[in-house]
Amino acid sequence: MSDSPAGAGGGTGVVDLLGVLAYAELTAFLRLAEDAATLAPSLTDRAALSGLAAVEYAHFRLLRDRLASLGADPEKAMAPFVEALDDWHAQTRPGDWLEALVKAYVGTGIAGDFYREAARHVDADTRELVDEVLAEEVRSEFVVDRVRTALAGSPQVAGRLALWARRMVGEALSQGNRLALARPELALLLVSESAGAGEGDADLIGIGRLFARLTEEHGKRMAALGLVPGP
Amino acid sequence: MSDSPAGAGGGTGVVDLLGVLAYAELTAFLRLAEDAATLAPSLTDRAALSGLAAVEYAHFRLLRDRLASLGADPEKAMAPFVEALDDWHAQTRPGDWLEALVKAYVGTGIAGDFYREAARHVDADTRELVDEVLAEEVRSEFVVDRVRTALAGSPQVAGRLALWARRMVGEALSQGNRLALARPELALLLVSESAGAGEGDADLIGIGRLFARLTEEHGKRMAALGLVPGP
Repeated sequence: MSDSPAGAGGGTGVVDLLGVLAYAELTAFLRLAEDAATLAPSLTDRAALSGLAAVEYAHFRLLRDRLASLGADPEKAMAPFVEALDDWHAQTRPGDWLEALVKAYVGTGIAGDFYREAARHVDADTRELVDEVLAEEVRSEFVVDRVRTALAGSPQVAGRLALWARRMVGEALSQGNRLALARPELALLLVSESAGAGEGDADLIGIGRLFARLTEEHGKRMAALGLVPGP
Repeated sequence: MSDSPAGAGGGTGVVDLLGVLAYAELTAFLRLAEDAATLAPSLTDRAALSGLAAVEYAHFRLLRDRLASLGADPEKAMAPFVEALDDWHAQTRPGDWLEALVKAYVGTGIAGDFYREAARHVDADTRELVDEVLAEEVRSEFVVDRVRTALAGSPQVAGRLALWARRMVGEALSQGNRLALARPELALLLVSESAGAGEGDADLIGIGRLFARLTEEHGKRMAALGLVPGP
């Protein structure tokens, strides 16, 4: 963890960024734990999804400590993002174990994409933290195994899960748009080529490109799960 | 983690012991996460209780890996204890944040006591593991702070929480009795002076002493929380 003095690299955009990622990790931890408790078909599966949850908590702690080291109050930094992220989870509550697995994979995948986008635009200390989070990236191979096994036994499940995944991304883009409008400094930080730059049109183009990259990465994850719809 | 060959110190009693502790940690993780998600009054409190939950998951992983290194199937080792522990949680579902805090403190405390009892009776490799778990013992000072602050503002709460804590211990002893009857090798391991020894009367005396030690430690925790009833 960095020992840099309060304020180093701590503009509003960076605090917003760390705040939204911190709350995303904390709430992902709690939702994954809930899904593990209520939907896992065996103790082994329950333990495996719990393991993903525990990694999310470790990420949360890194982000919270970074906020504190910047002199920011983690609770205040997270507060503006609670509603959007809670709404996303409310709109994407899994109905069964396979949906929970796909959500875990897609959700941590989107979070990872945001880390990567963020890493392009922040100061060196924060980038180091982002690298740290990505380095211990969630071991979610078991999710791929489980979903592929389920698809092999029952191909018609693929259509349902592909729609489910698409809904999650749609809801994520929708909440992302809402946040970008409410927190322009955060949006600027994520989309502009250098933090702080950017004008009206450039922002829109940047947001379009960001969403394009996110949906492209999502497509790769769908392929990994065997959920790509036919041509 | 130990590299000892399968079976070293891996009698049924030891596998039972690791199995019950592993499931206790896994389910404590999930229940603490649920309480954090549903009962915490602030994001800071939610994060703090989530931190306790994450520590429980780390303990679970140590125990599961130890079972695997003994050549035991963790799922099978945990299975006999699911009902008793689930029943305990069902009987002790917190109704509010203070009850959740007291449960976290009392529950992890009882688990710690069992680790200590276990450490007296198992092989050196398993004892090393138990020491490892105890060394990173849950940082639950925030629970003591929160409960004491609540009591200072409203002394009549103490009676309610003291009763709540007593109910949790009562349920724990009741489920413990049930398990001791169902898994005599586990009970023997916990109560006999040397693993494998012990006859009928000696067992009963041992169980009595074990319960006496557990309730004594519980009393110390109640005092720490400020929940000791008057003389």
